Amino acid sequence: MTQYIGHGRVEIVERIKEINDFNELKKIEIRRQLAHEIVSIAYGFLSPLRGFMNYEEVDSVVKEMRLPNGILWPIPLIFDIIDREIREGDVIGLTYMGKPLAIIKVDEIFKYDKKYIAEKVYKTTDIKHPGVRRTLNYGDKFIGGEVWLVNKLKFNEPYNRFWLTPIQHREVFKQKGWKKIVAFQTRNVPHTGHEYLMKYAWFAANENLKVDEPRTGILVNVVIGEKRIGDYIDEAILLTHDALSKYGYISKRVHLLSFTLWDMRYAGPREAILHAIIRSNLGCTHHVFGRDHAGVGNYYSPYEAHEIFDYISEKDLLIKPIFLRENYYCPKCGGIENEILCDHKDEKQEFSGSLLRSIIMDEVKPTKMVMRPEVYDTLMRAAREYGFGNPFVTEEYLKNRRNVFELGD
Amino acid sequence: MTQYIGHGRVEIVERIKEINDFNELKKIEIRRQLAHEIVSIAYGFLSPLRGFMNYEEVDSVVKEMRLPNGILWPIPLIFDIIDREIREGDVIGLTYMGKPLAIIKVDEIFKYDKKYIAEKVYKTTDIKHPGVRRTLNYGDKFIGGEVWLVNKLKFNEPYNRFWLTPIQHREVFKQKGWKKIVAFQTRNVPHTGHEYLMKYAWFAANENLKVDEPRTGILVNVVIGEKRIGDYIDEAILLTHDALSKYGYISKRVHLLSFTLWDMRYAGPREAILHAIIRSNLGCTHHVFGRDHAGVGNYYSPYEAHEIFDYISEKDLLIKPIFLRENYYCPKCGGIENEILCDHKDEKQEFSGSLLRSIIMDEVKPTKMVMRPEVYDTLMRAAREYGFGNPFVTEEYLKNRRNVFELGD
Repeated sequence: MTQYIGHGRVEIVERIKEINDFNELKKIEIRRQLAHEIVSIAYGFLSPLRGFMNYEEVDSVVKEMRLPNGILWPIPLIFDIIDREIREGDVIGLTYMGKPLAIIKVDEIFKYDKKYIAEKVYKTTDIKHPGVRRTLNYGDKFIGGEVWLVNKLKFNEPYNRFWLTPIQHREVFKQKGWKKIVAFQTRNVPHTGHEYLMKYAWFAANENLKVDEPRTGILVNVVIGEKRIGDYIDEAILLTHDALSKYGYISKRVHLLSFTLWDMRYAGPREAILHAIIRSNLGCTHHVFGRDHAGVGNYYSPYEAHEIFDYISEKDLLIKPIFLRENYYCPKCGGIENEILCDHKDEKQEFSGSLLRSIIMDEVKPTKMVMRPEVYDTLMRAAREYGFGNPFVTEEYLKNRRNVFELGD
Repeated sequence: MTQYIGHGRVEIVERIKEINDFNELKKIEIRRQLAHEIVSIAYGFLSPLRGFMNYEEVDSVVKEMRLPNGILWPIPLIFDIIDREIREGDVIGLTYMGKPLAIIKVDEIFKYDKKYIAEKVYKTTDIKHPGVRRTLNYGDKFIGGEVWLVNKLKFNEPYNRFWLTPIQHREVFKQKGWKKIVAFQTRNVPHTGHEYLMKYAWFAANENLKVDEPRTGILVNVVIGEKRIGDYIDEAILLTHDALSKYGYISKRVHLLSFTLWDMRYAGPREAILHAIIRSNLGCTHHVFGRDHAGVGNYYSPYEAHEIFDYISEKDLLIKPIFLRENYYCPKCGGIENEILCDHKDEKQEFSGSLLRSIIMDEVKPTKMVMRPEVYDTLMRAAREYGFGNPFVTEEYLKNRRNVFELGD
């Protein structure tokens, strides 16, 4: 457990290059997932990764959950290709949406048992698991090698309002005078259960509250990436979290909203660790983990993402996990409570994502103790503006949604 | 800053003796304040004190806020006498309510400028300040010397249900499996603002919540001592805090109720430090300090008790202070909030102790978001049972209240 490059306390090195000979390179047009991963690598979200993994790295991560140099790393980053005229030693120009995005220096071309990856990373080879499906659908050959971003990203509305690189995150934290920053991972429009998860986590990160100087902040870091039918649309997730602070439910003095480009793997416990690493790269000191973190279906037990941290030493992680139980509305207490502090289990009203969805689908405004009225209104506005009338992802949205960013020529 | 005897981590040594020759000793009948202080010294609440202070100790505490050996100590413990036939070297039998209570070995008889004590400890010599008044009313000579308890205490209902010595506190914490214990100081019947102060402090003490095992608890430690007209009666304070957990607002798994015999000095910041020391002696790891801690009138600014901790090193205090802002009910959030997290300042409904008192005086049941109905009902029951029909201290209560404890013959 030698050194800790990048995990939070060390300088982030951005991998951005200006090059003139892009057109002379062999080229591959890449899909959105890889493009997003390259952006995240280049800006340091995935530090200390400098590119896609080679055989030794994939093998070590899959088997040991560590990079070969001992650094904790839970999920392999894989650049898959289908048979092509690519050779080790090549420098390849990567285009996205037909435009130059990045270059990769092909260090190694190799094969690796995809089913074995699935088994180790997802603890299942069930094709219904979306992470497993993605893994098994990878091309048969993988490229290991460093990447550099070679083009400017121009983020579209509303993403441009919330885009911060890791270095910029750290700068904003400094400007705000925050000494402790607790990260909140989300792919959801916030209900009050989420809101109080953040509020309680804020207290949990705060041992030493000084009056008049909020030195602890909450970073709401949305994961923007592959969407599934029925998910909330990305634009709505951002805008509704923004509404929470805009309308004073969580003061802007302690609230910051941003996003990370990453396709959820739904890898449960392993993905929880990845989220911790990403947020430590952003400069966060704490990370909330609630129920079913980064899980899907019944592949992981509700608090499995908490348990994995028992096997990880503090030295391995430059961020402190805050484990919270699921909140519920307690009509007896008249507020958002949890099973450890409140004993009114028989009366508790749990937040059901699917119930909430069906209410929203029927365009019924939930009570303010379930969803803040301004959050609901913002959601519906986002549906009209970005979701083709629907707050949830539809086929139409998948086909016609606006890109997260555009590339210069 | 040599050693730290007693402040939390070290063995508590109880000062309890069986003696046969009590009747042969010179005797002094002492007032309730001194009796309570002797009990607190003997059981280790005030560890490392072993008795009442001598000149050097009073002088050092008053001027430096430390004992001569460097240990942090904010308030002098003084045994005052009026002219008597007592000599240095005497062992005096102390009776209370006419029965043997303790012995004191007279180490020194001395005088000290009482006005100077008031000025340094209370930052005022205004006789309207109850701590100042008590100080100026002390007899003109002080005895310094060690004390030992020589009799058994039999606590009356309802005190007997909540009496725990420091050693017993630590045993209960161990049985409950609590690793962190956050102390809550009170002289009040709890409104929801207090309840959430405790809940938020619980989160603040908890960096690493593990599911299913609440390893953090809240100790509600009531200060039982001199009462002023209009205070809540002691019995009601205990029983209403008990109701909070009995009726599930704060689960018994994370809640313990006990008391310390101590006459409030209302010394604001200095008393906050004393409270921290007492609770570290009980085995607590954290201590909540809210607004106006241990203050009275306008002698101290609302958060002066927070500020004093800036001048105290962590090594001096074996307990971590948790500083919380005052809570209020926010009708927009629909819950108990505070000024750092919530921005709806214009709509906030502050908890006003005096308003609440006047509502209760009129026997109007407050809404459950101000005071839990079971707390109110318990308060009213306590008023009938112990308060001569009144939940607040009256002349009648002061004259006829049941003793906290009785002594054997």
